[in-house]
Amino acid sequence: MGGDDAISVIFQSSPPPGVGYSRNPVVTQNCNALYAQAGGVTAVINSTAAGLIAAWRQQAPAGARLFGARDGIVGLLEERLVDLSALHEPELDMLGYSPSAALGTCRHVLQPEEHARLVAVLQRHRIGTVFYNGGGGAARACGDILAIAQAAGYPLNVVHVPKTIDNDIPDTDACPGFGSAAKYLATSLREASLDLAAMAGSSSKVFILETMGRYSGWLTAACGLAARHPGEGPHILLLPERPFDEERFLRRVRETVDRYGHCAVAASEGLTGANGELLHATGQRDAAGDRQLGGVAPWLAARVTARLGYKCHWSVADYLQRSARHLVSATDVAQARATGQAAVMIALAGERHFSPVIRRLADDPYRWDIVAAPLAVVTAPERRVPADFLTADGYQLSAAGRRYLAPLIVGEDYPPFRDGLPDYRIPAFTDISLSP
Amino acid sequence: MGGDDAISVIFQSSPPPGVGYSRNPVVTQNCNALYAQAGGVTAVINSTAAGLIAAWRQQAPAGARLFGARDGIVGLLEERLVDLSALHEPELDMLGYSPSAALGTCRHVLQPEEHARLVAVLQRHRIGTVFYNGGGGAARACGDILAIAQAAGYPLNVVHVPKTIDNDIPDTDACPGFGSAAKYLATSLREASLDLAAMAGSSSKVFILETMGRYSGWLTAACGLAARHPGEGPHILLLPERPFDEERFLRRVRETVDRYGHCAVAASEGLTGANGELLHATGQRDAAGDRQLGGVAPWLAARVTARLGYKCHWSVADYLQRSARHLVSATDVAQARATGQAAVMIALAGERHFSPVIRRLADDPYRWDIVAAPLAVVTAPERRVPADFLTADGYQLSAAGRRYLAPLIVGEDYPPFRDGLPDYRIPAFTDISLSP
Repeated sequence: MGGDDAISVIFQSSPPPGVGYSRNPVVTQNCNALYAQAGGVTAVINSTAAGLIAAWRQQAPAGARLFGARDGIVGLLEERLVDLSALHEPELDMLGYSPSAALGTCRHVLQPEEHARLVAVLQRHRIGTVFYNGGGGAARACGDILAIAQAAGYPLNVVHVPKTIDNDIPDTDACPGFGSAAKYLATSLREASLDLAAMAGSSSKVFILETMGRYSGWLTAACGLAARHPGEGPHILLLPERPFDEERFLRRVRETVDRYGHCAVAASEGLTGANGELLHATGQRDAAGDRQLGGVAPWLAARVTARLGYKCHWSVADYLQRSARHLVSATDVAQARATGQAAVMIALAGERHFSPVIRRLADDPYRWDIVAAPLAVVTAPERRVPADFLTADGYQLSAAGRRYLAPLIVGEDYPPFRDGLPDYRIPAFTDISLSP
Repeated sequence: MGGDDAISVIFQSSPPPGVGYSRNPVVTQNCNALYAQAGGVTAVINSTAAGLIAAWRQQAPAGARLFGARDGIVGLLEERLVDLSALHEPELDMLGYSPSAALGTCRHVLQPEEHARLVAVLQRHRIGTVFYNGGGGAARACGDILAIAQAAGYPLNVVHVPKTIDNDIPDTDACPGFGSAAKYLATSLREASLDLAAMAGSSSKVFILETMGRYSGWLTAACGLAARHPGEGPHILLLPERPFDEERFLRRVRETVDRYGHCAVAASEGLTGANGELLHATGQRDAAGDRQLGGVAPWLAARVTARLGYKCHWSVADYLQRSARHLVSATDVAQARATGQAAVMIALAGERHFSPVIRRLADDPYRWDIVAAPLAVVTAPERRVPADFLTADGYQLSAAGRRYLAPLIVGEDYPPFRDGLPDYRIPAFTDISLSP
């Protein structure tokens, strides 16, 4: 994905020896940097943070500080900053094992009246580089920040550090965070399918697992990895990429129950009808004005029961799927951490307005490196699941889909446990005191 | 719990040397046994099965066979039997690592017209012992089976082997299956609370996790283990033991958001109002006539948003919480397995109509043994969460509640993984061929 001419390899499991740090005027003039987190959290975004902080401590010029902004660019505007350079190795280790976003996040879109304030804060703290760690919203914010700085004549290096469980950022083989959510959901689907099979003789015949995914069905597609043999769940995948056809769906449910005794379904929250209308959404809207989703599983279950008479069970994983640090993909953790390290290498090499993205070199065994892609590329429209990743009927994972997805969930990386629960610890960050 | 005079110690981590197998006439006359599984599955019921099968292979008289019934007593009535004695060690190992109920379950209540059939099948296969592995419904079925056999003059030993994530069987310190579901939910709540905290500044302020539990709130109470310090979620626990008071609940939600910025809630599906009416239930009923629950979390979320204006997220874990073999309590696994082993010891010692139950010897470090309790005791009314396990306001776990619950979730016991997913394998059971 993406043309190789616009990118340079910057990370290959360990940094290649030949990377030179031709520090550009920006970095030497405003030698400090700022790291912030945006959007929905993932189980491994703090691994990216830990990788980035560790790389900065090792590689940045002496005296160059790394600030963190609380709650994304909102905290930057409000000057709620912390000192990330002060974190020590044990704290970075624990950070890497903790889910959620340690600094807090936001989905804020910069408003015209905030532009001057943004530049003033950057200037006051001699920030020459902004690392913004998030999905499509963060990529667009990076473009905004860059434009604002340029309009003000303020030299700034903006690095978008990719992250999203939605896997919808183009030009990266996978988005850090996705592989872990995919592993969690495929595991959950496999477990729930076995549960369903045990009860189906005399009770529920259908189980529906709702996954996150507003415009793309990557997480639902990944549930398909749970099925190893015909007859194993999930039997039906419902992605936003395919308009929902109730009659066809119910026919397939009935055929599946007739054949296997039960039917396990994975459905994306953003499922739409033939006219593109959402099948189910709450009345709430988020800060960016998007309608809050959630509830397509009970909606589908009610249709199945009403039309086919089958008792259904359903689950809405919601936050559980993106915060399940207890069941992450070791591949995803490695990529998340490497993405953070690579972001620092990009910045210190003076490559401005780039983003570290993952490039697949081989499927099996999976090999990858990280390259610097121009910022503009990652702000392209969301990447959706290609048609050939699903079978012709759209209800199952194809061999091509399996080939792409399979390596992303491989490997386990358990957090430390204490008293039976994961011992997550968010470091107590040191606030930057502001002179009056 | 329970009087010590009615019980005898039969299992203490390893079987005590002094247990004598005074084989009673039943066992020698009808030397075969039958094992079946009932009700909702757990992540560790197959560990009980594996322990029971292994113990039978080691300890039963030569030639005594162990049958399994598919789909609980329904399969017994329909003579759908398999040969459990034929399973080998590697298959038993894999069985112990797989969630769900390997043989299938049912919630069937024996009908008068089925009585003769039941006795005929037992007689035909020379079954002198029935092991029925389940919760309250299975305990009642054991009583029915016993009464039917006695009325027919058929000598039968009936052993109820406890299992339920609901933890509502009296007279056992914990029900195998509960500790693992509790660990899964407390972990999920801790992870989701961190997620919520990261976003609360500009987005959702409330998260609600719905847990299973029709009459008792044990699983919701266990979510309270996730909070180590004041301010950490869950901030509010809603159990069926306490009638729901909307005004009081909303006031507490608002106070919590005011103080900590966000509020994480765990709520039992069986939550009821002041008059005992269920707050939310679907129109469906299960085989036993009970209304199907599920949906109290979205109902609560809608109330919070309507009345307080907070954006909410919610999750309904459903099957995920009782099938999550990837995150079980090692303590629970050990108790589940020991319960299966103890069931065999009870049967072979000729103690009729007993149930192996867990007795707590010490809280910290947790020590326990398994004793034989009379069948009648475990058919007593459901055990509910005692009032003193919650704080006076009913919204949090008390020190007493924590002392009881804490040891039950301790220890990890991961299944083998393959290609990034748990490698669950249900053995291919050998069907018993029936002579025409």
